[in-house]
Amino acid sequence: MVTIGGGTGSFVVLSGLKNHDIDLSAVVAMTDSGGSTGKLRDQLGVLPPGDLRQALVALSEASDIWRKLFTYRFEAGDLKGHNFGNIFLSAIEKITNSNQEAIDRAADVLQTAGRVIPVTFDDCTLCAEYEDGSILEGEACIDSDEKVGTRIKKLFLRPLANINIEAKRVIERTDAVVLGPGDLYTSVIPNLIVSGVKETFEYVKAKKILVVNLMAKAGQTDGFKVSDFINEVEKYLGEGSLTHVIVNSKKIPQSLIDRYENVDKARPIEDDVGGTFRGARIIRANILSDDVYEKSKSDNLERSLVRHDPDRLANVVYKIVR
Amino acid sequence: MVTIGGGTGSFVVLSGLKNHDIDLSAVVAMTDSGGSTGKLRDQLGVLPPGDLRQALVALSEASDIWRKLFTYRFEAGDLKGHNFGNIFLSAIEKITNSNQEAIDRAADVLQTAGRVIPVTFDDCTLCAEYEDGSILEGEACIDSDEKVGTRIKKLFLRPLANINIEAKRVIERTDAVVLGPGDLYTSVIPNLIVSGVKETFEYVKAKKILVVNLMAKAGQTDGFKVSDFINEVEKYLGEGSLTHVIVNSKKIPQSLIDRYENVDKARPIEDDVGGTFRGARIIRANILSDDVYEKSKSDNLERSLVRHDPDRLANVVYKIVR
Repeated sequence: MVTIGGGTGSFVVLSGLKNHDIDLSAVVAMTDSGGSTGKLRDQLGVLPPGDLRQALVALSEASDIWRKLFTYRFEAGDLKGHNFGNIFLSAIEKITNSNQEAIDRAADVLQTAGRVIPVTFDDCTLCAEYEDGSILEGEACIDSDEKVGTRIKKLFLRPLANINIEAKRVIERTDAVVLGPGDLYTSVIPNLIVSGVKETFEYVKAKKILVVNLMAKAGQTDGFKVSDFINEVEKYLGEGSLTHVIVNSKKIPQSLIDRYENVDKARPIEDDVGGTFRGARIIRANILSDDVYEKSKSDNLERSLVRHDPDRLANVVYKIVR
Repeated sequence: MVTIGGGTGSFVVLSGLKNHDIDLSAVVAMTDSGGSTGKLRDQLGVLPPGDLRQALVALSEASDIWRKLFTYRFEAGDLKGHNFGNIFLSAIEKITNSNQEAIDRAADVLQTAGRVIPVTFDDCTLCAEYEDGSILEGEACIDSDEKVGTRIKKLFLRPLANINIEAKRVIERTDAVVLGPGDLYTSVIPNLIVSGVKETFEYVKAKKILVVNLMAKAGQTDGFKVSDFINEVEKYLGEGSLTHVIVNSKKIPQSLIDRYENVDKARPIEDDVGGTFRGARIIRANILSDDVYEKSKSDNLERSLVRHDPDRLANVVYKIVR
């Protein structure tokens, strides 16, 4: 099985899937430009380590201390805001001039139950063209709330990036590809616009599964319904390309919805589709986590309060493939 | 066997000794306050990682990439000048609040052929009182050339630091203790002034071996002869405490001596003793490295051009114990 995404969403699905008897590969977006990752990219000229690191930690079967280490963010001094895992990946890339070597060595330490594969090794910038004709460059800008209320018309990479041959290989050989969950425009689609991804998807026989997010994201997917998610993904992947769409059926507690509304101006994603949608089977299940996540004080990244439950989600995915 | 020291000197002796069939422990000074180590100490409140890291890398039997990683120094951006190994040790100490845990996890990754043991876990500052009555605080200050021409009268720690119980234990049980090589006042003696070290030395039956440096150090050991080294060590360890003193007998090439004279104002250490000195046997051998080391551009640390050869030195040490 191959997951495609990045960030917290990939972390959740990989954390669940690693407990199943699956040959697992995580294809990861390479467009992050914010925070520690963005600084290391700019200052050291390395490829963005953040999404790789999150996938590696998700797949880790090493003892707790190693996962904590790779997640640790320094809180003071020169290293303030930098994440240890990012520093580790950057250092090895600098020494060996190889991003793949950096991933492999992190995988050694973290004893990962699966492989982490950058969707591309090409250094590129994520760009978004909005309905009003304006263009934002850089994932960090697109991720900000600068364009709240304006929809993204088109995502693209500048310069063009080509698919990593290893990513192509695992997609060609897999039984199922799981897209998402995760930020649609900054984690999921940044993979699909890499040259060669759509083309590979077109001829592979694998099941193509989309996990729809729980909450919309201000400035990106405001007002999105399930049909919007499917439409957007298929805009880049080809109409009718998805075979399965997983939608949460469990009601999100009103108290949490209210908190989102107040803080992030985000709403739950409305389920507006039937049993199938343009050939894709809609699978509804309780995949909601019972835990409420708080925003971490030690970083400035947005963290969802409402999340998928890794095991519930993985069970639903696993049943499709079995 | 137990080595006592820090810095490059310990690196050399440990690199050689690890290839022998010896149960090896490295007791390491905890007073470094310069460079990356000093900054991490000040900014994060961790114990000084630099000397620990050098000993861990010296003892490493892991593949080359891990030794390179722990030695790697970032050259740009927020991380500029910081050493990866120091960052690793600091992160684990921050996560676990345990310096020992940091060492153990680094030892896991580096697959060390021996243990690295901080001489103390107490946070303390190295202070030097000079012949002119002035006092310098901090190893980095003492290591500078501020006091060239004035001898150090007395080294002490502020506040007093107590011996790490594990350091005490290995010294009590060892067959031989190897002091140095390394900067006398900033690597070797900083161990001996920790409360409990002298007292432990007094009753252990182990062989006590001093490896005399090759070159004097400007501002610290200017004009020192072999007898000065022995006298200074025994000032802190007790008169007549050394059983063996290893002195290089191979002539240092004049071209290198000239370069030292011009750049560092340092001269080779003159051998002014006989077959024994106050009960200690003087062992002379060619322990000089054939390689010439250049100063590293990526850091501002002083590196000797003239060094001991790890294997030659280890062979001489090993013969004493065998």
